[in-house]
Amino acid sequence: MGLFRGVRPLLAAFLRPLSASAPARSLALVYERHGEPARVLQLKDQERAELGHFGVHVKMLAAPVNPADINMIQGTYALLPDLPAVGGNEGVGQVVEIGSHVTSLKPGDWVIPIDAPVGTWRTDAVLSEGSLLKIPRNIPLLCAATLSVNPCTAYRMLADFETLEPGDSIIQNAANSGVGQAVIQIAAALGIKTINVIRDRPNLQELVHRLTSLGADHVVTEEMLRKPEMNDLFKKVPKPRLALNCVGGRSTTDMLRHIQQKGTMVTYGGMAKQPVTVPVSAFIFKDVKLHGFWMTQWKKNQTQNKDRLTGMILNLCDLIHKGQLTAPVCTEVPLKDYQIALEASMRPFTSSKQILVM
Amino acid sequence: MGLFRGVRPLLAAFLRPLSASAPARSLALVYERHGEPARVLQLKDQERAELGHFGVHVKMLAAPVNPADINMIQGTYALLPDLPAVGGNEGVGQVVEIGSHVTSLKPGDWVIPIDAPVGTWRTDAVLSEGSLLKIPRNIPLLCAATLSVNPCTAYRMLADFETLEPGDSIIQNAANSGVGQAVIQIAAALGIKTINVIRDRPNLQELVHRLTSLGADHVVTEEMLRKPEMNDLFKKVPKPRLALNCVGGRSTTDMLRHIQQKGTMVTYGGMAKQPVTVPVSAFIFKDVKLHGFWMTQWKKNQTQNKDRLTGMILNLCDLIHKGQLTAPVCTEVPLKDYQIALEASMRPFTSSKQILVM
Repeated sequence: MGLFRGVRPLLAAFLRPLSASAPARSLALVYERHGEPARVLQLKDQERAELGHFGVHVKMLAAPVNPADINMIQGTYALLPDLPAVGGNEGVGQVVEIGSHVTSLKPGDWVIPIDAPVGTWRTDAVLSEGSLLKIPRNIPLLCAATLSVNPCTAYRMLADFETLEPGDSIIQNAANSGVGQAVIQIAAALGIKTINVIRDRPNLQELVHRLTSLGADHVVTEEMLRKPEMNDLFKKVPKPRLALNCVGGRSTTDMLRHIQQKGTMVTYGGMAKQPVTVPVSAFIFKDVKLHGFWMTQWKKNQTQNKDRLTGMILNLCDLIHKGQLTAPVCTEVPLKDYQIALEASMRPFTSSKQILVM
Repeated sequence: MGLFRGVRPLLAAFLRPLSASAPARSLALVYERHGEPARVLQLKDQERAELGHFGVHVKMLAAPVNPADINMIQGTYALLPDLPAVGGNEGVGQVVEIGSHVTSLKPGDWVIPIDAPVGTWRTDAVLSEGSLLKIPRNIPLLCAATLSVNPCTAYRMLADFETLEPGDSIIQNAANSGVGQAVIQIAAALGIKTINVIRDRPNLQELVHRLTSLGADHVVTEEMLRKPEMNDLFKKVPKPRLALNCVGGRSTTDMLRHIQQKGTMVTYGGMAKQPVTVPVSAFIFKDVKLHGFWMTQWKKNQTQNKDRLTGMILNLCDLIHKGQLTAPVCTEVPLKDYQIALEASMRPFTSSKQILVM
């Protein structure tokens, strides 16, 4: 084996298919074991997978750092990849080359991955046709890079649990999160009023202003949520039929108290790392329903028929195109500076989403 | 006015319709203010309401003392009657006389009241045709007296939240309650396996034996519910698709841990006076759904169309007739000895339902 050691790269270059215009290598943020992302992630120069008949070579353009990506690397998420793995599960890429049996995509198309775990923090990937969804190229790059998790979560939670009509209201905590901002904008586009709960903070008015400019009808702090003044608010807006919960603990119990008779609360996150606590009377006498939502699972359930997924993505792109749905506040960070992005994304009260650009 | 004072009763007797065979009086357990039942209830000789064209004179035969009756008298229930009120909301009576416009009932029929609050702890009542449901007379009196709350609650919870097939399993706490015993029997008749959680107690084996004889497949204590040995149980029976919760607090969280992916927990009581606490992960990654059930509200929702209610009652009577559904262990107490029944029904670990007989 020693004989060929120095020859191999040359041999590999020689054997590369003529059609392959891009180098058969990829720079990727790889982790070989679970742990703190800053410690276990390494930027590696990897050999790209073979294209084969069914593969699609995607050049990644931009990929965000989401909380679930961090938890997946830490090993605390409900879905974990085989190791070693490439970090990241969302992003947008451009098709460079397709296998001979690929029919629905062509070079130049913008695509987003719909499977998880996938590994989007790399310059190049070869993925299967079925794991990619083509999106229009008339939307901003950062919107495309952050389309498939947060706006989709917001869209489904608004669509699938209660039949909301214009003039109805919903309430949500963690309203300044990526999902929260998408909820505000999609609801506003549909004429649904939003009551948005956020934690108190030094620059509160700045955040209230930002959420209001996105279309938030009411912004309240968690402390205000417990005060009798909330009754005044409900003279202006109907009690919410739907509550979206990303926190847990007291925030959630307080929010639930304002929900309408027979309303639904959907839990999609647990930022406070505390359980959801519900008085028995809310179930029996108020007939509230508590459900959960996980976008990853929803997407997995669409593998047989992608019509609902495609329809949703096109609806969201339409909102983006009309200026009714914008990307969250983002900070673009070159892939090689990933340590800066990781550090910023794990800082408390971060309101800017870190986007790795390749 | 004074002139006629002594004449009035005579005049009233003279004006009474000839068809009225029973005395126009009723002995009733009345409360004029909310408070501890033993203190505020009084046995009173009351004038019965006029029959009118639409009234049905019902001679009550037997009426149970349910926990909700106690809470209603205490003033802590979600539904309270105008005061003064007659206690009790369940029972069976026999039609004595009907108003001229009553078409669906005739003297001799057995009836159960379907409205609440109603006041069943009395010898005679005049009720509207629409508030009564005729039941077959081929079932035991104590079954009829205890039919409209607990067996109906059990029936609806088994029917309305998950589509259960023979061989599926359900789990319930407070399994020795009135509802719990009905759940065991109805589920057994349908071929659905039951995992029944009860509190540890001095005469545990006796209770286990009784529930097993009703058709319980598995009986476990709340302590056993937390032990790894539960995994052995789930080698014999599938994980439950449905959990029925009448307790709250730790019992409920422990029960929820054993539910199947995408399963449903229905809360219909809160005996522990503690809230329901759910880990966020159960909502997101296990996709469990939490709902509530209140029989009183369900019945109110059927006022326009009683087909589902009638169908359920006939199904339950059929199970009773076939010996598949029995009354809970009962103690019959004459109406005048109501203090004994109240005291017994409020004692902890009471396994015998107190039935007032008129």
